[in-house]
Amino acid sequence: MTQATLIDGKAFALTVRERVAKAAQVLKDRDGIHPGLAVVLVGEDPASQIYVRNKHKATVEAGLHSFEHRLPAEATESELLALVAQLNEDPRVNGILVQLPLPKQIDEAAVIAAIHPDKDVDGFHVINAGRLWTGGAGTVPCTPLGCLQLLKHHVGNLSGKKALVIGRSNIVGKPMAGLLLNESCTVTVAHSRTADLAAEVAQADIVVAAVGRPRMVKGEWLKPGAVVIDVGINRIDAGDGKTKVVGDVDFDSAVERAGAITPVPGGVGPMTIAMLLYNTLRATCLQAGVAVPAELDA
Amino acid sequence: MTQATLIDGKAFALTVRERVAKAAQVLKDRDGIHPGLAVVLVGEDPASQIYVRNKHKATVEAGLHSFEHRLPAEATESELLALVAQLNEDPRVNGILVQLPLPKQIDEAAVIAAIHPDKDVDGFHVINAGRLWTGGAGTVPCTPLGCLQLLKHHVGNLSGKKALVIGRSNIVGKPMAGLLLNESCTVTVAHSRTADLAAEVAQADIVVAAVGRPRMVKGEWLKPGAVVIDVGINRIDAGDGKTKVVGDVDFDSAVERAGAITPVPGGVGPMTIAMLLYNTLRATCLQAGVAVPAELDA
Repeated sequence: MTQATLIDGKAFALTVRERVAKAAQVLKDRDGIHPGLAVVLVGEDPASQIYVRNKHKATVEAGLHSFEHRLPAEATESELLALVAQLNEDPRVNGILVQLPLPKQIDEAAVIAAIHPDKDVDGFHVINAGRLWTGGAGTVPCTPLGCLQLLKHHVGNLSGKKALVIGRSNIVGKPMAGLLLNESCTVTVAHSRTADLAAEVAQADIVVAAVGRPRMVKGEWLKPGAVVIDVGINRIDAGDGKTKVVGDVDFDSAVERAGAITPVPGGVGPMTIAMLLYNTLRATCLQAGVAVPAELDA
Repeated sequence: MTQATLIDGKAFALTVRERVAKAAQVLKDRDGIHPGLAVVLVGEDPASQIYVRNKHKATVEAGLHSFEHRLPAEATESELLALVAQLNEDPRVNGILVQLPLPKQIDEAAVIAAIHPDKDVDGFHVINAGRLWTGGAGTVPCTPLGCLQLLKHHVGNLSGKKALVIGRSNIVGKPMAGLLLNESCTVTVAHSRTADLAAEVAQADIVVAAVGRPRMVKGEWLKPGAVVIDVGINRIDAGDGKTKVVGDVDFDSAVERAGAITPVPGGVGPMTIAMLLYNTLRATCLQAGVAVPAELDA
Protein backbone atom coordinates (compact mmCIF):
# COMPACT_ATOMS: atom_id res chain seq x y z
CA MET A 1 0.00 0.00 0.00
CA THR A 2 1.24 3.48 -0.76
CA GLN A 3 2.37 5.39 2.27
CA ALA A 4 1.26 8.93 3.01
CA THR A 5 3.43 11.87 2.07
CA LEU A 6 5.19 13.17 5.16
CA ILE A 7 4.52 16.84 5.74
CA ASP A 8 7.89 18.15 6.81
CA GLY A 9 7.11 20.91 9.27
CA LYS A 10 10.76 21.35 10.15
CA ALA A 11 11.69 22.18 6.56
CA PHE A 12 8.64 24.38 6.03
CA ALA A 13 9.27 26.24 9.29
CA LEU A 14 12.76 26.99 8.03
CA THR A 15 11.26 28.40 4.84
CA VAL A 16 8.93 30.61 6.87
CA ARG A 17 11.81 31.82 9.01
CA GLU A 18 13.81 32.67 5.89
CA ARG A 19 10.84 34.63 4.55
CA VAL A 20 10.61 36.51 7.83
CA ALA A 21 14.31 37.31 7.61
CA LYS A 22 13.91 38.63 4.06
CA ALA A 23 10.89 40.69 5.03
CA ALA A 24 12.74 42.07 8.05
CA GLN A 25 15.55 43.13 5.72
CA VAL A 26 13.03 44.91 3.49
CA LEU A 27 11.57 46.72 6.51
CA LYS A 28 15.06 47.81 7.50
CA ASP A 29 16.11 48.99 4.03
CA ARG A 30 12.78 50.42 2.90
CA ASP A 31 11.34 51.83 6.11
CA GLY A 32 14.21 52.01 8.58
CA ILE A 33 12.29 49.73 10.94
CA HIS A 34 13.83 47.02 13.10
CA PRO A 35 11.05 44.75 14.48
CA GLY A 36 11.33 43.72 18.10
CA LEU A 37 9.86 40.82 20.05
CA ALA A 38 9.76 40.80 23.84
CA VAL A 39 9.43 37.49 25.65
CA VAL A 40 8.58 37.43 29.34
CA LEU A 41 9.38 34.39 31.45
CA VAL A 42 8.18 34.14 35.03
CA GLY A 43 9.85 31.49 37.16
CA GLU A 44 12.12 28.60 36.34
CA ASP A 45 9.92 26.02 34.59
CA PRO A 46 12.48 23.92 32.65
CA ALA A 47 10.28 23.40 29.56
CA SER A 48 9.48 27.11 29.43
CA GLN A 49 13.16 27.95 29.71
CA ILE A 50 13.91 25.79 26.67
CA TYR A 51 11.10 27.38 24.67
CA VAL A 52 12.22 30.87 25.58
CA ARG A 53 15.80 30.10 24.63
CA ASN A 54 14.71 28.68 21.27
CA LYS A 55 12.49 31.68 20.62
CA HIS A 56 15.32 34.06 21.40
CA LYS A 57 17.67 32.23 19.04
CA ALA A 58 15.15 32.11 16.20
CA THR A 59 14.25 35.78 16.68
CA VAL A 60 17.85 36.92 16.42
CA GLU A 61 18.54 34.63 13.46
CA ALA A 62 15.63 36.23 11.58
CA GLY A 63 17.18 39.65 12.14
CA LEU A 64 14.64 40.81 14.73
CA HIS A 65 15.39 42.46 18.04
CA SER A 66 14.89 40.05 20.91
CA PHE A 67 14.12 41.41 24.37
CA GLU A 68 14.09 38.94 27.20
CA HIS A 69 12.54 39.68 30.57
CA ARG A 70 12.74 37.29 33.49
CA LEU A 71 10.79 37.61 36.70
CA PRO A 72 11.23 35.36 39.73
CA ALA A 73 8.74 32.55 40.39
CA GLU A 74 7.33 34.53 43.31
CA ALA A 75 6.65 37.67 41.22
CA THR A 76 3.26 39.25 41.86
CA GLU A 77 0.57 39.83 39.29
CA SER A 78 1.00 43.59 39.61
CA GLU A 79 4.73 43.31 38.95
CA LEU A 80 4.01 41.38 35.76
CA LEU A 81 1.25 43.79 34.73
CA ALA A 82 3.62 46.71 35.27
CA LEU A 83 6.16 45.06 32.97
CA VAL A 84 3.49 44.42 30.32
CA ALA A 85 2.39 48.06 30.54
CA GLN A 86 5.98 49.16 30.02
CA LEU A 87 6.36 46.88 26.98
CA ASN A 88 3.04 48.14 25.57
CA GLU A 89 4.53 51.64 25.62
CA ASP A 90 7.99 50.74 24.34
CA PRO A 91 8.22 51.66 20.65
CA ARG A 92 11.08 49.19 20.08
CA VAL A 93 8.77 46.34 21.06
CA ASN A 94 6.33 45.25 18.34
CA GLY A 95 5.37 41.90 19.80
CA ILE A 96 4.90 40.75 23.38
CA LEU A 97 4.79 37.12 24.43
CA VAL A 98 4.28 36.13 28.03
CA GLN A 99 5.34 32.52 28.35
CA LEU A 100 2.59 30.30 29.77
CA PRO A 101 1.91 28.68 32.16
CA LEU A 102 2.29 31.37 34.81
CA PRO A 103 2.79 30.70 38.53
CA LYS A 104 -0.54 30.18 40.24
CA GLN A 105 -0.59 33.50 42.12
CA ILE A 106 -0.96 35.24 38.72
CA ASP A 107 -4.23 35.32 36.75
CA GLU A 108 -3.32 34.40 33.17
CA ALA A 109 -6.50 35.90 31.75
CA ALA A 110 -5.73 39.27 33.36
CA VAL A 111 -2.22 39.26 31.91
CA ILE A 112 -3.38 38.33 28.40
CA ALA A 113 -6.04 41.06 28.58
CA ALA A 114 -3.36 43.61 29.54
CA ILE A 115 -1.24 43.07 26.43
CA HIS A 116 -2.02 45.62 23.73
CA PRO A 117 -4.01 43.68 21.10
CA ASP A 118 -1.79 44.98 18.31
CA LYS A 119 1.30 43.64 20.11
CA ASP A 120 -0.39 40.36 21.10
CA VAL A 121 1.65 38.12 18.77
CA ASP A 122 0.31 35.01 20.51
CA GLY A 123 -3.18 35.96 19.30
CA PHE A 124 -4.76 35.09 22.65
CA HIS A 125 -6.35 38.49 23.37
CA VAL A 126 -10.15 38.55 23.28
CA ILE A 127 -10.03 41.25 20.60
CA ASN A 128 -7.91 39.05 18.36
CA ALA A 129 -10.26 36.10 18.91
CA GLY A 130 -13.13 38.42 17.97
CA ARG A 131 -11.35 39.67 14.87
CA LEU A 132 -10.81 36.10 13.66
CA TRP A 133 -14.55 35.38 13.94
CA THR A 134 -15.80 38.65 12.44
CA GLY A 135 -13.48 38.97 9.48
CA GLY A 136 -11.26 41.66 10.97
CA ALA A 137 -7.49 41.93 10.57
CA GLY A 138 -6.00 40.51 13.73
CA THR A 139 -3.37 38.14 15.00
CA VAL A 140 -4.12 34.43 14.96
CA PRO A 141 -2.58 32.03 17.51
CA CYS A 142 0.70 30.60 16.21
CA THR A 143 -0.06 26.88 16.29
CA PRO A 144 -3.32 26.88 14.28
CA LEU A 145 -1.83 29.44 11.91
CA GLY A 146 1.11 27.12 11.36
CA CYS A 147 -1.28 24.21 10.72
CA LEU A 148 -3.12 26.31 8.16
CA GLN A 149 0.10 27.20 6.36
CA LEU A 150 1.08 23.53 6.17
CA LEU A 151 -2.38 22.66 4.84
CA LYS A 152 -2.37 25.38 2.20
CA HIS A 153 1.12 24.40 1.15
CA HIS A 154 0.14 20.74 0.71
CA VAL A 155 -3.48 20.96 -0.41
CA GLY A 156 -3.68 24.31 -2.16
CA ASN A 157 -7.20 25.73 -2.25
CA LEU A 158 -9.16 24.46 0.76
CA SER A 159 -12.57 25.72 -0.38
CA GLY A 160 -15.31 23.10 -0.05
CA LYS A 161 -13.11 20.55 1.70
CA LYS A 162 -14.60 18.75 4.67
CA ALA A 163 -12.40 19.59 7.65
CA LEU A 164 -12.59 18.05 11.09
CA VAL A 165 -11.00 19.76 14.08
CA ILE A 166 -10.70 17.49 17.10
CA GLY A 167 -10.40 19.58 20.25
CA ARG A 168 -11.91 22.92 21.19
CA SER A 169 -9.26 24.77 23.15
CA ASN A 170 -8.95 28.55 22.88
CA ILE A 171 -5.36 28.13 21.74
CA VAL A 172 -5.76 25.55 18.97
CA GLY A 173 -9.16 23.99 18.27
CA LYS A 174 -11.43 27.02 18.16
CA PRO A 175 -9.11 29.34 16.20
CA MET A 176 -8.30 26.45 13.84
CA ALA A 177 -12.03 26.07 13.14
CA GLY A 178 -12.31 29.80 12.46
CA LEU A 179 -9.35 29.75 10.07
CA LEU A 180 -10.70 26.76 8.13
CA LEU A 181 -14.14 28.36 7.93
CA ASN A 182 -12.54 31.52 6.55
CA GLU A 183 -10.93 29.28 3.90
CA SER A 184 -14.45 28.04 3.02
CA CYS A 185 -14.05 24.54 4.36
CA THR A 186 -17.13 22.77 5.71
CA VAL A 187 -15.90 22.63 9.29
CA THR A 188 -16.82 20.23 12.07
CA VAL A 189 -15.54 20.60 15.62
CA ALA A 190 -15.43 17.39 17.63
CA HIS A 191 -14.37 16.96 21.25
CA SER A 192 -14.68 14.74 24.31
CA ARG A 193 -18.49 14.78 24.14
CA THR A 194 -18.66 13.76 20.49
CA ALA A 195 -20.77 10.62 20.20
CA ASP A 196 -18.98 8.88 17.32
CA LEU A 197 -15.57 10.31 16.60
CA ALA A 198 -14.62 7.52 14.19
CA ALA A 199 -17.62 8.39 12.01
CA GLU A 200 -16.59 12.06 11.96
CA VAL A 201 -13.01 11.19 11.03
CA ALA A 202 -14.19 8.83 8.28
CA GLN A 203 -15.79 11.72 6.36
CA ALA A 204 -13.05 14.31 6.65
CA ASP A 205 -10.74 15.38 3.82
CA ILE A 206 -8.71 17.23 6.45
CA VAL A 207 -8.22 16.16 10.06
CA VAL A 208 -6.58 18.42 12.64
CA ALA A 209 -6.09 16.60 15.94
CA ALA A 210 -5.46 18.76 19.00
CA VAL A 211 -6.63 16.92 22.09
CA GLY A 212 -3.50 15.89 23.96
CA ARG A 213 -4.33 12.18 24.10
CA PRO A 214 -1.61 9.89 22.74
CA ARG A 215 -2.53 8.02 19.53
CA MET A 216 -6.23 8.50 20.07
CA VAL A 217 -7.10 8.86 16.38
CA LYS A 218 -6.75 5.50 14.64
CA GLY A 219 -5.56 5.10 11.07
CA GLU A 220 -8.48 2.80 10.23
CA TRP A 221 -10.87 5.67 10.92
CA LEU A 222 -9.40 7.87 8.21
CA LYS A 223 -10.90 8.48 4.81
CA PRO A 224 -8.29 7.15 2.39
CA GLY A 225 -6.19 10.05 1.14
CA ALA A 226 -7.08 12.40 3.98
CA VAL A 227 -4.60 15.07 5.01
CA VAL A 228 -3.77 14.73 8.70
CA ILE A 229 -2.32 17.48 10.87
CA ASP A 230 -1.30 16.18 14.28
CA VAL A 231 -0.91 18.92 16.90
CA GLY A 232 -0.45 16.52 19.79
CA ILE A 233 2.83 16.35 21.68
CA ASN A 234 2.45 13.56 24.23
CA ARG A 235 5.34 12.05 26.12
CA ILE A 236 4.80 8.35 26.75
CA ASP A 237 6.64 5.39 28.18
CA ALA A 238 8.80 3.88 25.41
CA GLY A 239 8.90 0.50 27.16
CA ASP A 240 12.65 0.36 27.78
CA GLY A 241 12.71 2.71 30.74
CA LYS A 242 12.87 5.64 28.35
CA THR A 243 10.14 7.96 27.13
CA LYS A 244 9.24 9.18 23.69
CA VAL A 245 7.01 11.80 22.13
CA VAL A 246 3.95 10.78 20.09
CA GLY A 247 1.04 12.69 18.61
CA ASP A 248 -2.73 12.48 19.01
CA VAL A 249 -2.85 10.32 15.88
CA ASP A 250 -1.68 6.72 15.76
CA PHE A 251 0.99 7.43 13.20
CA ASP A 252 1.86 3.86 12.18
CA SER A 253 -1.68 3.01 11.12
CA ALA A 254 -2.48 6.50 9.81
CA VAL A 255 0.51 6.64 7.48
CA GLU A 256 -0.89 3.60 5.64
CA ARG A 257 -4.17 5.32 4.86
CA ALA A 258 -3.68 9.10 4.83
CA GLY A 259 -2.69 11.04 1.74
CA ALA A 260 -0.36 13.22 3.77
CA ILE A 261 0.46 13.45 7.46
CA THR A 262 2.61 15.48 9.81
CA PRO A 263 5.03 13.40 11.86
CA VAL A 264 5.49 13.96 15.60
CA PRO A 265 8.02 15.32 16.27
CA GLY A 266 8.98 17.35 13.21
CA GLY A 267 5.50 18.31 11.99
CA VAL A 268 3.48 21.08 13.59
CA GLY A 269 5.90 21.68 16.46
CA PRO A 270 8.59 23.61 14.56
CA MET A 271 5.94 25.80 12.92
CA THR A 272 4.92 27.49 16.16
CA ILE A 273 8.06 29.57 16.62
CA ALA A 274 8.16 30.33 12.89
CA MET A 275 4.62 31.71 13.06
CA LEU A 276 5.51 33.75 16.14
CA LEU A 277 8.15 35.53 14.08
CA TYR A 278 5.69 35.82 11.19
CA ASN A 279 3.10 37.39 13.51
CA THR A 280 5.71 39.79 14.88
CA LEU A 281 6.62 40.90 11.36
CA ARG A 282 2.99 41.53 10.46
CA ALA A 283 2.31 43.31 13.76
CA THR A 284 5.29 45.58 13.14
CA CYS A 285 3.95 46.58 9.73
CA LEU A 286 0.47 47.27 11.09
CA GLN A 287 1.86 49.38 13.92
CA ALA A 288 4.09 51.36 11.58
CA GLY A 289 1.36 51.71 8.95
CA VAL A 290 3.60 50.26 6.23
CA ALA A 291 2.83 47.54 3.70
CA VAL A 292 3.68 43.97 4.66
CA PRO A 293 6.67 43.07 2.44
CA ALA A 294 5.64 40.59 -0.28
CA GLU A 295 8.64 38.50 0.76
CA LEU A 296 6.79 37.39 3.91
CA ASP A 297 4.26 35.25 2.04
CA ALA A 298 6.30 34.62 -1.10
CA MET B 1 -47.05 9.83 9.43
CA THR B 2 -46.65 11.78 12.63
CA GLN B 3 -46.08 15.44 12.09
CA ALA B 4 -43.34 17.38 13.81
CA THR B 5 -44.03 19.33 16.96
CA LEU B 6 -44.31 23.01 16.11
CA ILE B 7 -41.92 25.12 18.12
CA ASP B 8 -44.00 28.14 19.00
CA GLY B 9 -41.53 31.00 19.08
CA LYS B 10 -44.27 33.54 19.55
CA ALA B 11 -45.45 31.93 22.77
CA PHE B 12 -41.92 31.34 24.04
CA ALA B 13 -40.93 34.92 23.24
CA LEU B 14 -43.85 36.08 25.34
CA THR B 15 -42.59 33.93 28.20
CA VAL B 16 -39.13 35.47 27.87
CA ARG B 17 -40.61 38.96 27.85
CA GLU B 18 -42.59 38.19 30.99
CA ARG B 19 -39.41 36.94 32.66
CA VAL B 20 -37.66 40.15 31.68
CA ALA B 21 -40.52 42.15 33.15
CA LYS B 22 -40.34 40.22 36.42
CA ALA B 23 -36.57 40.61 36.57
CA ALA B 24 -36.90 44.34 35.86
CA GLN B 25 -39.31 44.59 38.75
CA VAL B 26 -36.78 42.86 41.01
CA LEU B 27 -34.08 45.27 39.91
CA LYS B 28 -36.35 48.17 40.72
CA ASP B 29 -37.44 46.86 44.13
CA ARG B 30 -34.17 45.34 45.22
CA ASP B 31 -31.60 47.67 43.72
CA GLY B 32 -33.49 50.81 42.76
CA ILE B 33 -32.37 50.33 39.15
CA HIS B 34 -34.47 51.05 36.09
CA PRO B 35 -32.84 49.48 32.99
CA GLY B 36 -32.78 51.60 29.85
CA LEU B 37 -32.44 50.67 26.17
CA ALA B 38 -31.56 53.27 23.54
CA VAL B 39 -32.42 52.56 19.93
CA VAL B 40 -30.94 54.71 17.18
CA LEU B 41 -32.58 54.89 13.78
CA VAL B 42 -30.90 56.68 10.90
CA GLY B 43 -33.10 57.48 7.91
CA GLU B 44 -36.58 56.39 6.90
CA ASP B 45 -36.25 52.74 5.86
CA PRO B 46 -39.81 51.40 6.27
CA ALA B 47 -38.83 47.95 7.55
CA SER B 48 -36.46 49.51 10.08
CA GLN B 49 -39.17 51.88 11.24
CA ILE B 50 -41.46 48.94 11.96
CA TYR B 51 -38.72 47.10 13.86
CA VAL B 52 -37.90 50.17 15.92
CA ARG B 53 -41.56 50.76 16.75
CA ASN B 54 -41.95 47.13 17.85
CA LYS B 55 -38.81 47.31 19.93
CA HIS B 56 -39.99 50.46 21.63
CA LYS B 57 -43.35 48.89 22.46
CA ALA B 58 -41.83 45.67 23.81
CA THR B 59 -39.27 47.61 25.85
CA VAL B 60 -41.90 49.72 27.57
CA GLU B 61 -44.15 46.71 28.13
CA ALA B 62 -41.32 44.94 29.94
CA GLY B 63 -40.96 47.90 32.26
CA LEU B 64 -37.70 49.17 30.78
CA HIS B 65 -36.88 52.74 29.84
CA SER B 66 -36.96 53.19 26.07
CA PHE B 67 -34.93 55.98 24.51
CA GLU B 68 -35.44 56.59 20.82
CA HIS B 69 -33.04 58.64 18.72
CA ARG B 70 -33.69 59.45 15.09
CA LEU B 71 -31.17 60.95 12.72
CA PRO B 72 -31.97 62.03 9.16
CA ALA B 73 -30.96 59.79 6.25
CA GLU B 74 -28.22 62.27 5.32
CA ALA B 75 -26.63 62.22 8.82
CA THR B 76 -22.86 61.96 8.78
CA GLU B 77 -20.81 59.24 10.41
CA SER B 78 -19.40 61.71 12.90
CA GLU B 79 -22.88 62.83 13.92
CA LEU B 80 -23.82 59.23 14.60
CA LEU B 81 -20.55 58.55 16.42
CA ALA B 82 -21.14 61.62 18.59
CA LEU B 83 -24.57 60.29 19.53
CA VAL B 84 -23.13 56.87 20.34
CA ALA B 85 -20.46 58.50 22.52
CA GLN B 86 -23.15 60.40 24.38
CA LEU B 87 -25.17 57.21 24.94
CA ASN B 88 -22.03 55.37 26.11
CA GLU B 89 -21.69 58.02 28.83
CA ASP B 90 -25.36 58.24 29.79
CA PRO B 91 -25.92 56.26 33.01
CA ARG B 92 -29.64 55.86 32.25
CA VAL B 93 -28.75 53.90 29.11
CA ASN B 94 -27.72 50.29 29.72
CA GLY B 95 -28.13 49.02 26.19
CA ILE B 96 -27.50 50.65 22.83
CA LEU B 97 -28.85 49.35 19.56
CA VAL B 98 -28.09 51.10 16.29
CA GLN B 99 -30.61 49.81 13.77
CA LEU B 100 -28.94 48.33 10.67
CA PRO B 101 -28.60 48.79 7.77
CA LEU B 102 -27.13 52.29 7.90
CA PRO B 103 -27.07 54.75 4.99
CA LYS B 104 -24.09 54.13 2.78
CA GLN B 105 -22.11 57.23 3.82
CA ILE B 106 -21.72 55.63 7.25
CA ASP B 107 -19.29 52.81 8.01
CA GLU B 108 -21.26 50.22 9.99
CA ALA B 109 -18.13 48.58 11.37
CA ALA B 110 -16.91 51.90 12.77
CA VAL B 111 -20.25 52.50 14.48
CA ILE B 112 -20.41 49.02 15.99
CA ALA B 113 -16.83 49.40 17.24
CA ALA B 114 -17.76 52.71 18.90
CA ILE B 115 -20.50 51.22 21.09
CA HIS B 116 -19.21 50.37 24.55
CA PRO B 117 -18.93 46.56 24.61
CA ASP B 118 -20.84 46.34 27.89
CA LYS B 119 -23.75 48.30 26.35
CA ASP B 120 -23.60 46.41 23.03
CA VAL B 121 -26.87 44.51 23.48
CA ASP B 122 -26.79 43.39 19.84
CA GLY B 123 -23.59 41.47 20.62
CA PHE B 124 -21.94 42.60 17.38
CA HIS B 125 -18.85 44.23 18.93
CA VAL B 126 -15.57 42.44 18.25
CA ILE B 127 -14.97 42.09 21.99
CA ASN B 128 -18.29 40.31 22.44
CA ALA B 129 -17.50 38.01 19.51
CA GLY B 130 -14.16 37.30 21.17
CA ARG B 131 -15.77 36.63 24.55
CA LEU B 132 -18.13 34.09 22.98
CA TRP B 133 -15.19 32.16 21.52
CA THR B 134 -12.91 32.30 24.54
CA GLY B 135 -15.37 31.50 27.28
CA GLY B 136 -15.74 35.02 28.63
CA ALA B 137 -18.95 36.64 29.85
CA GLY B 138 -20.23 38.76 27.01
CA THR B 139 -23.32 39.58 25.03
CA VAL B 140 -24.41 37.17 22.31
CA PRO B 141 -26.31 38.35 19.20
CA CYS B 142 -30.06 38.16 19.78
CA THR B 143 -31.10 35.85 16.96
CA PRO B 144 -28.74 32.93 17.66
CA LEU B 145 -29.32 33.37 21.39
CA GLY B 146 -33.04 33.07 20.74
CA CYS B 147 -32.46 29.94 18.66
CA LEU B 148 -30.45 28.44 21.50
CA GLN B 149 -33.18 29.16 24.02
CA LEU B 150 -35.76 27.48 21.79
CA LEU B 151 -33.47 24.48 21.38
CA LYS B 152 -32.76 24.12 25.08
CA HIS B 153 -36.44 24.47 25.85
CA HIS B 154 -37.39 21.69 23.40
CA VAL B 155 -34.38 19.38 23.56
CA GLY B 156 -33.05 19.88 27.07
CA ASN B 157 -29.38 18.97 27.40
CA LEU B 158 -27.64 19.48 24.04
CA SER B 159 -24.35 17.81 24.98
CA GLY B 160 -23.14 15.33 22.37
CA LYS B 161 -25.84 16.17 19.83
CA LYS B 162 -24.76 16.56 16.23
CA ALA B 163 -25.65 20.12 15.23
CA LEU B 164 -25.48 21.60 11.75
CA VAL B 165 -25.44 25.36 11.24
CA ILE B 166 -26.12 26.36 7.64
CA GLY B 167 -24.76 29.83 7.00
CA ARG B 168 -21.70 31.61 8.37
CA SER B 169 -22.72 35.22 8.89
CA ASN B 170 -21.29 37.23 11.77
CA ILE B 171 -24.82 37.88 13.01
CA VAL B 172 -26.26 34.35 13.02
CA GLY B 173 -24.20 31.44 11.70
CA LYS B 174 -20.87 31.98 13.42
CA PRO B 175 -22.19 32.94 16.88
CA MET B 176 -24.73 30.09 16.63
CA ALA B 177 -21.83 27.67 16.07
CA GLY B 178 -20.01 29.11 19.08
CA LEU B 179 -23.07 28.78 21.31
CA LEU B 180 -23.69 25.17 20.27
CA LEU B 181 -20.05 24.31 20.81
CA ASN B 182 -20.26 25.81 24.30
CA GLU B 183 -23.23 23.48 24.88
CA SER B 184 -20.94 20.57 23.89
CA CYS B 185 -22.62 19.77 20.59
CA THR B 186 -20.51 18.32 17.81
CA VAL B 187 -20.89 21.31 15.51
CA THR B 188 -20.62 21.52 11.73
CA VAL B 189 -20.82 24.78 9.84
CA ALA B 190 -21.98 24.47 6.23
CA HIS B 191 -22.34 27.27 3.68
CA SER B 192 -22.45 28.04 -0.02
CA ARG B 193 -19.19 26.19 -0.69
CA THR B 194 -20.27 23.01 1.06
CA ALA B 195 -19.97 20.11 -1.36
CA ASP B 196 -22.93 17.97 -0.23
CA LEU B 197 -25.35 19.84 1.97
CA ALA B 198 -27.95 17.07 1.88
CA ALA B 199 -25.43 14.63 3.34
CA GLU B 200 -24.64 17.06 6.15
CA VAL B 201 -28.31 17.61 6.93
CA ALA B 202 -28.95 13.85 6.94
CA GLN B 203 -26.64 13.36 9.93
CA ALA B 204 -27.75 16.23 12.10
CA ASP B 205 -29.82 15.92 15.27
CA ILE B 206 -30.18 19.71 15.18
CA VAL B 207 -30.34 21.87 12.06
CA VAL B 208 -30.16 25.66 12.21
CA ALA B 209 -30.75 27.19 8.78
CA ALA B 210 -29.64 30.80 8.32
CA VAL B 211 -28.84 31.40 4.69
CA GLY B 212 -31.63 33.60 3.34
CA ARG B 213 -32.60 31.28 0.48
CA PRO B 214 -36.28 30.33 0.36
CA ARG B 215 -37.03 26.65 1.09
CA MET B 216 -33.49 25.58 0.26
CA VAL B 217 -33.35 22.81 2.86
CA LYS B 218 -35.57 19.92 1.80
CA GLY B 219 -37.53 17.76 4.21
CA GLU B 220 -36.24 14.56 2.56
CA TRP B 221 -32.72 15.51 3.60
CA LEU B 222 -33.54 15.50 7.30
CA LYS B 223 -32.67 12.76 9.74
CA PRO B 224 -36.05 11.54 11.03
CA GLY B 225 -36.79 13.24 14.32
CA ALA B 226 -34.33 16.10 13.83
CA VAL B 227 -35.02 19.43 15.50
CA VAL B 228 -35.12 22.19 12.91
CA ILE B 229 -34.64 25.88 13.64
CA ASP B 230 -35.41 28.02 10.61
CA VAL B 231 -33.93 31.52 10.81
CA GLY B 232 -34.83 32.44 7.23
CA ILE B 233 -37.33 35.19 6.52
CA ASN B 234 -37.76 35.26 2.74
CA ARG B 235 -40.54 37.11 0.99
CA ILE B 236 -41.65 35.27 -2.16
CA ASP B 237 -44.34 35.51 -4.80
CA ALA B 238 -47.46 33.74 -3.51
CA GLY B 239 -48.76 33.16 -7.03
CA ASP B 240 -51.89 35.27 -6.78
CA GLY B 241 -50.24 38.66 -7.16
CA LYS B 242 -49.52 38.64 -3.44
CA THR B 243 -46.37 37.76 -1.56
CA LYS B 244 -45.73 35.63 1.48
CA VAL B 245 -42.94 34.93 3.89
CA VAL B 246 -41.20 31.56 3.94
CA GLY B 247 -38.15 30.21 5.71
CA ASP B 248 -34.90 28.63 4.50
CA VAL B 249 -36.44 25.22 5.10
CA ASP B 250 -39.14 23.70 2.93
CA PHE B 251 -41.66 23.54 5.73
CA ASP B 252 -44.27 21.28 4.11
CA SER B 253 -41.82 18.44 3.51
CA ALA B 254 -39.81 19.07 6.67
CA VAL B 255 -42.81 18.90 8.99
CA GLU B 256 -43.38 15.30 7.85
CA ARG B 257 -39.92 14.20 8.90
CA ALA B 258 -38.62 16.46 11.66
CA GLY B 259 -39.21 15.82 15.33
CA ALA B 260 -39.78 19.50 15.95
CA ILE B 261 -39.61 22.59 13.76
CA THR B 262 -40.03 26.33 14.00
CA PRO B 263 -42.65 27.73 11.63
CA VAL B 264 -42.00 30.87 9.57
CA PRO B 265 -43.43 33.24 10.58
CA GLY B 266 -43.93 32.68 14.28
CA GLY B 267 -40.77 30.74 15.06
CA VAL B 268 -37.42 32.43 15.49
CA GLY B 269 -38.62 35.89 14.45
CA PRO B 270 -40.42 36.86 17.65
CA MET B 271 -37.48 35.67 19.75
CA THR B 272 -35.14 38.39 18.50
CA ILE B 273 -36.78 41.30 20.29
CA ALA B 274 -37.32 39.16 23.40
CA MET B 275 -33.60 38.39 23.51
CA LEU B 276 -32.78 42.07 23.02
CA LEU B 277 -34.66 42.83 26.21
CA TYR B 278 -33.02 39.84 27.88
CA ASN B 279 -29.57 41.11 26.86
CA THR B 280 -30.43 44.59 28.14
CA LEU B 281 -31.45 43.19 31.51
CA ARG B 282 -28.23 41.21 31.82
CA ALA B 283 -26.13 44.16 30.68
CA THR B 284 -27.77 46.36 33.30
CA CYS B 285 -26.87 43.90 36.05
CA LEU B 286 -23.27 43.62 34.88
CA GLN B 287 -22.91 47.40 34.71
CA ALA B 288 -24.41 47.86 38.15
CA GLY B 289 -22.45 44.96 39.63
CA VAL B 290 -25.61 43.30 40.94
CA ALA B 291 -26.73 39.68 40.61
CA VAL B 292 -28.90 38.80 37.62
CA PRO B 293 -32.36 38.13 39.14
CA ALA B 294 -33.19 34.42 39.05
CA GLU B 295 -36.54 35.38 37.51
CA LEU B 296 -34.78 36.12 34.19
CA ASP B 297 -33.98 32.47 33.45
CA ALA B 298 -36.68 30.87 35.58
